Amino acid sequence: MKPRKVISEMDSYIPGKSQDEIAMEFGINKEDIIKLGSNENPWGPSSKAVKAIKESVLNINRYPESDLRELIHEFAVYSGVDDSQVVVGGDGADEIIDVLAKTFIDDGDEFIVPLPSYMYYEYLLQQYGAKPVYASWDMEENKLDVNSVIDAITDKTKMIFLCSPNNPTGTLISKEDISKIAEINENILIVVDEAYFEYAEITNKDLINKYPNIFIIRTMSKVMGLAGMRVGYGLSSPEIIDYIFRVKPVFSITRLSYVAALNTLKDKKYIQESIKSGIESRQYLYDELSKIPTLNVLPSRSNFILIGIKDTGFKASQLTRELMKKGIIVRDCTSFKGLDEYWIRISICTMDENKKFIEIMNEVLS
Amino acid sequence: MKPRKVISEMDSYIPGKSQDEIAMEFGINKEDIIKLGSNENPWGPSSKAVKAIKESVLNINRYPESDLRELIHEFAVYSGVDDSQVVVGGDGADEIIDVLAKTFIDDGDEFIVPLPSYMYYEYLLQQYGAKPVYASWDMEENKLDVNSVIDAITDKTKMIFLCSPNNPTGTLISKEDISKIAEINENILIVVDEAYFEYAEITNKDLINKYPNIFIIRTMSKVMGLAGMRVGYGLSSPEIIDYIFRVKPVFSITRLSYVAALNTLKDKKYIQESIKSGIESRQYLYDELSKIPTLNVLPSRSNFILIGIKDTGFKASQLTRELMKKGIIVRDCTSFKGLDEYWIRISICTMDENKKFIEIMNEVLS
Repeated sequence: MKPRKVISEMDSYIPGKSQDEIAMEFGINKEDIIKLGSNENPWGPSSKAVKAIKESVLNINRYPESDLRELIHEFAVYSGVDDSQVVVGGDGADEIIDVLAKTFIDDGDEFIVPLPSYMYYEYLLQQYGAKPVYASWDMEENKLDVNSVIDAITDKTKMIFLCSPNNPTGTLISKEDISKIAEINENILIVVDEAYFEYAEITNKDLINKYPNIFIIRTMSKVMGLAGMRVGYGLSSPEIIDYIFRVKPVFSITRLSYVAALNTLKDKKYIQESIKSGIESRQYLYDELSKIPTLNVLPSRSNFILIGIKDTGFKASQLTRELMKKGIIVRDCTSFKGLDEYWIRISICTMDENKKFIEIMNEVLS
Repeated sequence: MKPRKVISEMDSYIPGKSQDEIAMEFGINKEDIIKLGSNENPWGPSSKAVKAIKESVLNINRYPESDLRELIHEFAVYSGVDDSQVVVGGDGADEIIDVLAKTFIDDGDEFIVPLPSYMYYEYLLQQYGAKPVYASWDMEENKLDVNSVIDAITDKTKMIFLCSPNNPTGTLISKEDISKIAEINENILIVVDEAYFEYAEITNKDLINKYPNIFIIRTMSKVMGLAGMRVGYGLSSPEIIDYIFRVKPVFSITRLSYVAALNTLKDKKYIQESIKSGIESRQYLYDELSKIPTLNVLPSRSNFILIGIKDTGFKASQLTRELMKKGIIVRDCTSFKGLDEYWIRISICTMDENKKFIEIMNEVLS
């Protein structure tokens, strides 16, 4: 059995190390590991979500409801848009990206990503036969090189991915730049990834009323504290939302994910505190890390910070390993296209964890 | 923004009625509704799965582990195959079907489905530009018309779907027929859907060692009592499993679905009792329904029974509505291609529910 050509050319999948493996390899307790690698909410899920899960757990033998209207309505209220402008996905934002590709990408289409950015766009879109065209992020100014995006557009361009705040660089793409790009060709879908928008307290959701070719991706994996439950959503014109619903998996949101999402959205206090604590944690980390002279700490509007480590004498792979020995997981950014081997990314943590991390970081770098 | 041609030609999605809506429309309590529509395990999930979920619920702010090896190993042990012959999916068997299409289907390829069968194959594969070619199920004999499958094969055939026990007809496809079809062309993938195999106590998993072009689909939504948690798996040659892992979503199994699946597989007693009770329930329903002279009750090796109702004077849509008024949800099979408007499908229930259903069925038909 031969797979499609594009699949036959892909590499085999090699799973990352599990936390059990890390704990075993370095002789540390799994419980003591501090996770600064995945941009999660370190304060745990909403207690209302936890309660709702416990109340629903005896019904998991039943299929999820295929009617998502109640959850869609809560997302619409939270986002300040109409219900008809919302779609919900069952594998976090990743399912939303997948159905966007399934809906719009024909073999041979091109998509533009300014590097460095979230790598999963490319992983998913290449499966549909799309070709990546790279634009660039201005690393000196830490902002999008908007002309590099405009210059990359051809008559084959079908999508442009703009992550704001951008992962891994942490800063925003201006509303003016997004509008400018959206205006060029209404047949190019501008995918604005707002996975981290709450930490910047800025959204581009108003643009969907102005530009029918803008699609905003959101997730419950960050501020909302539900990375493990895999719920994402998208905001766009009712026309595009209708197309997405034609192809999206009907039952992909688990029964427990559904109640967790619904009850987290209703827990306004939890959301507000997650944002507030997240911003405080980021500020603390930025201030403390900036005191270490060999680090190039980039300002961030997100829940993570990108750090250039060239002057430390370590490569990212080496520093990541040294930190792992002491129970700290950070993200080695070497695999991000558009970054060299001297960058790590750290996520916000609780204050206790932050302090321990700063201590260990100083220790390792001294 | 124009979608791909195949998407533009699809119908808009209209969600089914939620149980709240049904309860409201017919003035019944949601809790009193008896669900014979979706082939679920009516006895609820494994208590070990429930316990594991409760123990993990505070960690749902963390991404699922991308390393699925422990769960894969449990599936391999349960299935009596090697770990390298197993892939796991995060939206029940539906994700497995989707990644099979993504891996193998090029635009214009054909796939064969003997009608009637599970409709979701066609829903998913057409999104990848594949064309359905219909073979047939011999409704008189209630068995696969194997020659109709062989006759449908062309040089464009890429996949053949064989559901055994078949949904909605309930009976098995013989191992000889599956082998015969698999031998024709090793470049055609034979997808054997064993979602319900435990109720037949027969599997074709031994065939994957003989035919590298056989792929067996399994799910935790039936006997395993986890329809709401969306876990499926597939068994095939290591070569095909490797291809699937290249494209499958990395995080699609939620953190709670993972522990639920793992702990259900370890709960041998629960699995055995679910099978035993399921077969007893099916026998009871078959015996009691067979006493109603206007019903054509088909023998079943699954957890559901297909019933021809032509002699009752009702169409399936009418009878379904009459039963719904009394709080009973059954499956109107009119939308199954290959069946006329005179078939309903019912799932096994607990004995109390079975008795109530039989009572109401007699009432409605008298």
